[in-house]
Amino acid sequence: MKLEKRHMARAIDVAVIGVRKGNSPFGSCIVKGGRVIAAAHNTVLQKHDATNHAEMNAIRLACRKLGSHELKGCTVYSTTEPCPMCFSAIHWAKADAIVFGTGIADVKRLGFSELTISDRRMKKDGHSKLRISSGFMKQECQELLDHWKKKNGKVY
Amino acid sequence: MKLEKRHMARAIDVAVIGVRKGNSPFGSCIVKGGRVIAAAHNTVLQKHDATNHAEMNAIRLACRKLGSHELKGCTVYSTTEPCPMCFSAIHWAKADAIVFGTGIADVKRLGFSELTISDRRMKKDGHSKLRISSGFMKQECQELLDHWKKKNGKVY
Repeated sequence: MKLEKRHMARAIDVAVIGVRKGNSPFGSCIVKGGRVIAAAHNTVLQKHDATNHAEMNAIRLACRKLGSHELKGCTVYSTTEPCPMCFSAIHWAKADAIVFGTGIADVKRLGFSELTISDRRMKKDGHSKLRISSGFMKQECQELLDHWKKKNGKVY
Repeated sequence: MKLEKRHMARAIDVAVIGVRKGNSPFGSCIVKGGRVIAAAHNTVLQKHDATNHAEMNAIRLACRKLGSHELKGCTVYSTTEPCPMCFSAIHWAKADAIVFGTGIADVKRLGFSELTISDRRMKKDGHSKLRISSGFMKQECQELLDHWKKKNGKVY
């Protein structure tokens, strides 16, 4: 398996662990120089904290690991397109790139329908230099959503 | 002093404490039923965490206090217009309203120039129901920025 695929697989795996604990089906993994420095799933329900999206948890973990508020040279892998909160956090952290699988439209079908501003639009309107790759391992990321839908399917 | 003014004054006071510790000049205060349930300043530099804007810290604190990921019935006071990350977090937390003093344009002049998407634009594009009040105690919030500028004035 190619390195990039291993990184997204890690984000999916961590999301599956999160779903098992009753969380929403989202995972994220932050990579620097080919090495995973943080991986986290959404913990909004588990920790009763609205800010605990997968990417936010991963950023916080990565900042702690690097001892810096900057994640220069890092790529953020997300199973689903980061929401505007997470996109902005990735931008503020000065990461290089975002790679995601399923898009906002895919989770909208599941009921996650709010703040549907795409990352490309956030990038354009906010004049961000973040590189964005969409649809990476989309099928596997869709299977994660299907798995959650079958198991729970309740949107909070 | 009117209750609303007391709330914003609290956000300013906590921001001044943050500036004293070397942080950026932003404070936030979350109110429910006329009672302050959380107040926090920006701790990005102090805690080495890109996500630690004042509003994010206040939301996390309020969620912990209420034991819930939802802040229904709450108003978020911010000394400066929340950035898209914070706007989105306030939206996700299902707070009722945002009240802020200085706007994104005011801090742009100080060098905080990235992701300049206004809250009104975020609300419109994201179809958010959050109520937004701008320019509240703007002069006092501007004095906070001036105080920081005189003391430090370094943008990270």
